[in-house]
Amino acid sequence: MQQVYTIDEIMGMNKISRINFMNTISGFKSANLIASINDIGKSNLAIFSSVIHLGSKPPFFGFVSRPASVERHTLSNILANKFYTINHVNTNNFNQAHQTSGKYPMGISEFEQCGLNEEYINDFKVPFVNSSSVKLAMEFVEKLHIAANDTVLVVGKLLFVATPSNALQETGMISLENLGTTAISGINSYHATKKLATLPYVSAQNASGND
Amino acid sequence: MQQVYTIDEIMGMNKISRINFMNTISGFKSANLIASINDIGKSNLAIFSSVIHLGSKPPFFGFVSRPASVERHTLSNILANKFYTINHVNTNNFNQAHQTSGKYPMGISEFEQCGLNEEYINDFKVPFVNSSSVKLAMEFVEKLHIAANDTVLVVGKLLFVATPSNALQETGMISLENLGTTAISGINSYHATKKLATLPYVSAQNASGND
Repeated sequence: MQQVYTIDEIMGMNKISRINFMNTISGFKSANLIASINDIGKSNLAIFSSVIHLGSKPPFFGFVSRPASVERHTLSNILANKFYTINHVNTNNFNQAHQTSGKYPMGISEFEQCGLNEEYINDFKVPFVNSSSVKLAMEFVEKLHIAANDTVLVVGKLLFVATPSNALQETGMISLENLGTTAISGINSYHATKKLATLPYVSAQNASGND
Repeated sequence: MQQVYTIDEIMGMNKISRINFMNTISGFKSANLIASINDIGKSNLAIFSSVIHLGSKPPFFGFVSRPASVERHTLSNILANKFYTINHVNTNNFNQAHQTSGKYPMGISEFEQCGLNEEYINDFKVPFVNSSSVKLAMEFVEKLHIAANDTVLVVGKLLFVATPSNALQETGMISLENLGTTAISGINSYHATKKLATLPYVSAQNASGND
């Protein structure tokens, strides 16, 4: 049987239930760790489930942050230093990744606190997460203020990608499932995946297909 | 062994490979069907992998569309009529859902073309997808133009939710896995999930936690 929950009923839930409910009903979410550095080069690492693909050419990704009016290390670091990294949360590091959602004072790196190792690639000045299977080097492009609820969409441009050398398939796809990339539901449930099918190409126009 | 792909190498891929690559490297994506209606009440249905949670109070979700400068039935319908529905793509309807990514002329409903049934709930004038396990009634709030690549973030407010009456758990979470909600990788791969763990609450601040 189907039940309808009105917005008054949802807003009347206690805070944790409301957050859990609202965070599950849009479906599964990407699981990524975003690393940034402050003015003296100290790293910061935080888990985000809002990273989305915005376009393939130019190569843009976005993520949602609360505004800088409250203390947001990731956002303020990116605005100050322009560069950051996006790293997949995998089946082998989701426990550590989840711990980065705790509050740690500025100047304390979540890498050390949560048992994740920094990896530097080429000359990029922001570290990557060593145990992540897909690592994106990003440059800040613009931020859009979502007035309706005072959040910020941070738009960045991809500079390079590091991933296992056998991951790239002939079609250009990376098998996220083979790499152990996880998906998030709600704010604290982590999922592995089981592929149902890769369906024939119909048209990219609606999928996420902003190319 | 790890391989680095530079942006020049990625942009040098053929178009399909580049789209596939760019659409996989940010991780798994939500799988939703967005229904809208045109001026004479004819329904339109399209699959989107860019639906994201923006905030819990007020209850906002967003999705990314290419601009209205090209023919985008979903976006133009929403701008004209303000109301739309978001419906999960499930293990039982992903084949039909995928077909909505094809191009159909204005005035032809993808519901009929793709073998999905309309469902009307209460007095909401836009149909839901009958076979979807989670159905969101949405009202348009604002659109933000992402200048960097000429896309649009469409922000909407949740009005009500319809889901099986046994789906809501004590914590406020809905078990997407039990409901058969799928996740997308790339533009055409669909995945079921297998829960690894629900981890103790650390802090909602970074997860997607825009409450």
